[in-house]
Amino acid sequence: MKICYEPIGILHTELTELSEAPRFYTESPYTGVIEVFPPYEQGLAGLDGQDRIVVLFHFHLSKDYELLQHRRGAGELTGVFNLCSPMRPNPIGMSVLKLTAVKGCNVYVAGLDMVDETPILDIKPFKPFA
Amino acid sequence: MKICYEPIGILHTELTELSEAPRFYTESPYTGVIEVFPPYEQGLAGLDGQDRIVVLFHFHLSKDYELLQHRRGAGELTGVFNLCSPMRPNPIGMSVLKLTAVKGCNVYVAGLDMVDETPILDIKPFKPFA
Repeated sequence: MKICYEPIGILHTELTELSEAPRFYTESPYTGVIEVFPPYEQGLAGLDGQDRIVVLFHFHLSKDYELLQHRRGAGELTGVFNLCSPMRPNPIGMSVLKLTAVKGCNVYVAGLDMVDETPILDIKPFKPFA
Repeated sequence: MKICYEPIGILHTELTELSEAPRFYTESPYTGVIEVFPPYEQGLAGLDGQDRIVVLFHFHLSKDYELLQHRRGAGELTGVFNLCSPMRPNPIGMSVLKLTAVKGCNVYVAGLDMVDETPILDIKPFKPFA
């Protein structure tokens, strides 16, 4: 069973090397712009009132995966579903990003752990887990 | 550009009607079991120490979407990216579920807002946003 999606946008940022990407979005000084493609721009209505957003994206540089991986490349050996590693059976990433502005189809974000040209699959409102 | 994934598992739960599903995972009394398919079982290693997990899934009952929707079907009209509605351009759902046990390929969860036979795309550790 194949499930296929098409990107709703693409990320633009100065971060181009996966090896330089922060391991987790809470640790990042990088900012960028998600360019939402014109057919989806209207779906951004109301988003500018949010402080943070959940972004689902495709790890487009990940070509393979291992079921057991070392945490952060050197720590304990554990299952991929117990890790945020980009090398996963379905290379979908999730980040909670700081939203700084929405202007037309451009969504300005901070706290990036994604590289330039990352395909964006979805944007959702962030709901802190109480 | 098409991005295709294959489910890593499937959800089993008594909740079968989308209309009966809680609108958000924080509101749900439902429990269930994610059956992770055998080729991916090893990827669950270490997960049983977690209290909560992030589950990405395919809204398999969603056939279409609107860019502007009423919140919870009746509230303010706002953009789909400002809502958790299952009717989205890429119908990917995200839930934070309570993990109650991992036994072999079966992941026992509580707080479900997903219906029976939902295809599971990914499981990630939950990291509370500080």
